[in-house]
Amino acid sequence: MTNNTHEPISAQEAVYFIFGATGDLAKRKLFPALYSLYREGKLGEKFAVVGLARRPRTKEQFQDDVHQSILEFCRYKPTELDNWEGFVSHFSYQSLDIANVEGFRTLKDHTEALEVQYQIPGNRLFYLALAPELFGSVSRSLRDGGMLESAGWHRLVIEKPFGYNYPSAEKLNEEIRQVFREEEVFRIDHYLGKEMVQNIEAIRFANSFFEPLWNNKHIANVQITLAETVGVEDRGAYYNKSGALRDMVQNHMLQMLTMIAMEPPSRLDAEDIRDEKVKVLRSIRKLRSGEEIRNNIIRGQYAQGTSRGKELKGYREEESVDPESTTETFFGARLFVDNFRWAGVPFYVRTGKRLPVKSTEIVIEFNNVPNHVHFASKQKLLPNLLVIRVNPMEGIYIKMNAKKPGNEMTIQPIAMEFCQSCQVGINTPEAYERLIYDAARGDSTYFTRWDELAVAWRLVDPFAEAWREDESDLQFYAAGSWGPQKVDDLLSEDGYHWWPVNGQDEDNVIWVSNSGK
Amino acid sequence: MTNNTHEPISAQEAVYFIFGATGDLAKRKLFPALYSLYREGKLGEKFAVVGLARRPRTKEQFQDDVHQSILEFCRYKPTELDNWEGFVSHFSYQSLDIANVEGFRTLKDHTEALEVQYQIPGNRLFYLALAPELFGSVSRSLRDGGMLESAGWHRLVIEKPFGYNYPSAEKLNEEIRQVFREEEVFRIDHYLGKEMVQNIEAIRFANSFFEPLWNNKHIANVQITLAETVGVEDRGAYYNKSGALRDMVQNHMLQMLTMIAMEPPSRLDAEDIRDEKVKVLRSIRKLRSGEEIRNNIIRGQYAQGTSRGKELKGYREEESVDPESTTETFFGARLFVDNFRWAGVPFYVRTGKRLPVKSTEIVIEFNNVPNHVHFASKQKLLPNLLVIRVNPMEGIYIKMNAKKPGNEMTIQPIAMEFCQSCQVGINTPEAYERLIYDAARGDSTYFTRWDELAVAWRLVDPFAEAWREDESDLQFYAAGSWGPQKVDDLLSEDGYHWWPVNGQDEDNVIWVSNSGK
Repeated sequence: MTNNTHEPISAQEAVYFIFGATGDLAKRKLFPALYSLYREGKLGEKFAVVGLARRPRTKEQFQDDVHQSILEFCRYKPTELDNWEGFVSHFSYQSLDIANVEGFRTLKDHTEALEVQYQIPGNRLFYLALAPELFGSVSRSLRDGGMLESAGWHRLVIEKPFGYNYPSAEKLNEEIRQVFREEEVFRIDHYLGKEMVQNIEAIRFANSFFEPLWNNKHIANVQITLAETVGVEDRGAYYNKSGALRDMVQNHMLQMLTMIAMEPPSRLDAEDIRDEKVKVLRSIRKLRSGEEIRNNIIRGQYAQGTSRGKELKGYREEESVDPESTTETFFGARLFVDNFRWAGVPFYVRTGKRLPVKSTEIVIEFNNVPNHVHFASKQKLLPNLLVIRVNPMEGIYIKMNAKKPGNEMTIQPIAMEFCQSCQVGINTPEAYERLIYDAARGDSTYFTRWDELAVAWRLVDPFAEAWREDESDLQFYAAGSWGPQKVDDLLSEDGYHWWPVNGQDEDNVIWVSNSGK
Repeated sequence: MTNNTHEPISAQEAVYFIFGATGDLAKRKLFPALYSLYREGKLGEKFAVVGLARRPRTKEQFQDDVHQSILEFCRYKPTELDNWEGFVSHFSYQSLDIANVEGFRTLKDHTEALEVQYQIPGNRLFYLALAPELFGSVSRSLRDGGMLESAGWHRLVIEKPFGYNYPSAEKLNEEIRQVFREEEVFRIDHYLGKEMVQNIEAIRFANSFFEPLWNNKHIANVQITLAETVGVEDRGAYYNKSGALRDMVQNHMLQMLTMIAMEPPSRLDAEDIRDEKVKVLRSIRKLRSGEEIRNNIIRGQYAQGTSRGKELKGYREEESVDPESTTETFFGARLFVDNFRWAGVPFYVRTGKRLPVKSTEIVIEFNNVPNHVHFASKQKLLPNLLVIRVNPMEGIYIKMNAKKPGNEMTIQPIAMEFCQSCQVGINTPEAYERLIYDAARGDSTYFTRWDELAVAWRLVDPFAEAWREDESDLQFYAAGSWGPQKVDDLLSEDGYHWWPVNGQDEDNVIWVSNSGK
């Protein structure tokens, strides 16, 4: 099924099962996403949502939970609309002990009644907003309770972490695959649901500008930054085991890298795109020895620091964090995609907590004009950049050189921008909204396939292993700074530097648009 | 002498002779340009300006003329500054009969006194704001009156029309060259003084983005529009002889075309650049037969029409125009540059009076994404454009495709813009200011060399000849419209169309910038 056809692909006529319906993800993301889809007519009226969790809740209590969640987190407000009751009447709740198959048999009866009531032909989407340890037993109980015996499709939607390393991920996958086929499993990487990440495809393949330049003859390096200002907050227990490598790099960062680096797929269909992404992951140069890893991979942990005049604790001083923790809150790397297109082009990636700004950006730096030619022989020219701003600002800009107005032929850098998030009246769908919609339509383009996941784990596992063997490379950086010096050295060794994120605020480029329009 | 060195090249220490000092050009352009240069410290204090015309004027009257002109037309205002007297004291006036060498001997004495007074080492710049018929006799009188015997440099600055066709231009040139060497002659094409025309060099040669795409493999066509809203106004006597071909095409339009099409010069020096421009002109395909010309060259004349609710006369109804005039007020053409870089790429040019908007723009249309690939096989994609806005707005924009925000993968055209004239506080020098400054520094980059002029005349002379032989191809168009239908047909025959000028107002592209900055 293609993701860019104009035929109406329905997300209608399904029962949505939300496991973990009393949890944070359901409240912040899933209920609001369902309501937005409903408001835009994408759910129709032939659907039902069943909330599932251990805690007892009446239908009315649950519907009230949903109402509160949407009031607080949804981009549409229920007050604006008369049919709130029409929407929430589709929601019911069942208390469930995951280990007990009996509960699933009750659920089956309840579901079949809903399917009759709403004329739903047996399509069932199981969203597991649960700890991954439970994925296997829920899957088995679904099967054993008869929940997978209906006439329609059955889809399992799950979220990271998909394991802790390759062996644990493989074990998790095997448990799921005893019940579901690969094409029934939808593994969410919410970065793939982001507008500008999806836009990478359009930018690359709907423009004739870029494809001729999209290779090592014209691109000098690629810089991917995913910067957070927050610290570990109350996620210490999870984060201490995960660290930046597992929390951000193995999934979001590598996904962005593969979207940039992949070959044009044979078709823009889910399997073709995912085939190409796997090929990129396979081409990433393996770093095997501890020395190779230390020379290309930097880990850091934030120490005490300040940001905008505020004192910030170090990671080891945070509550729920071991005072001798070596968990990395910062990851930086120089990676190479060893194929014909990218040989020799460094991909620099960095992500961290307690950095100066919240920003996710991808910078494509083009080769500079040769040093001894024309303007470059007289003045220092800055290279051309294409910048894809993913979050929180959404847009793209091009940085190039032009004549400085005046009598002299002086060159200055200028920026040409398309700021999507600046558009008035644009109400961009949330990542979860897209992803639930895609899963219900059976479009798996922006979900992670098992082989992608497996290659990604095999790529990063040696890093974690090297770190475990020798802890001396952990770099401390002041909270509120841009991370360890060593991550700057990675680039300066190659004659490059990190371009400022938030270019409009921090770069010295001339940035002028006709604001009248 | 290079135009992009950072060494200070002085425009100081010269006497500027303004022939035609009581005329319109002096008043509107030349005095204001001199004042702006003075205000920016580019003239220093060692200079003098001598106004020359037939009419008697006292020094005080002349200084008052200059004051009025600057009050009305200069981008700097004399009231802002204390040293107005300091500036205007450099101005003197002499009444002069051009045919009478005696007057030039008087001028010589006057000049030598000024050179002593201002410590000027004999540099003399002669600006002939006169009818071209007088260029020869003024040159001879300058020589015979001893005005060219000083120690410094002597430069002649002249303006179009340089003849009426190749034979008359050659005759004019020969008269001048009896007195001045080629490198002493500065032929102004004021379009070459425009900021964005000069910027073409920077855009092409200071960015690595464009050079790889700047050829027939990637560019589909080039569209150059120079649109005026005015009619013939009070220039009927001149215009009726000239027409759009001689008034706009042979000079400004071909100059813009050569800046876009030229090969990278060996150095960015005046002679190297002009060498490359001549090569382009030589490569433009000659149209010899009347049929070839009619198939590629369209002439039009405005008839009665309306613009913004206002009734407009036809050209033949204008005062001072012959009611049976066949003078073209509109010119459109499809030209080909038959060299390796551009073979097969049409250059469409159009210029006209009484068009809907005043706008000069150059559109580079890139090849579209192949029809059967990815997005293009599902949706109609618009091609990428690079647009250079020359006048009255100055800037560049890129039109490309991106994903439309939302759940579907729908492609929409977007524009990324750098609007130079929107910059607050930017006070762009006038074209004449740059050109006088360049002439005084001896930089001839943006002046037309004789061989350029000769090739341009030889290119357009056959058009005028074919028109004279057969007047039936003259197309009438309603004043206020975009010219004859046939000029649209030129493009539609090739599968293209004119892109809207003033894209922001007239195109359907999504045009959003972060106006907050």
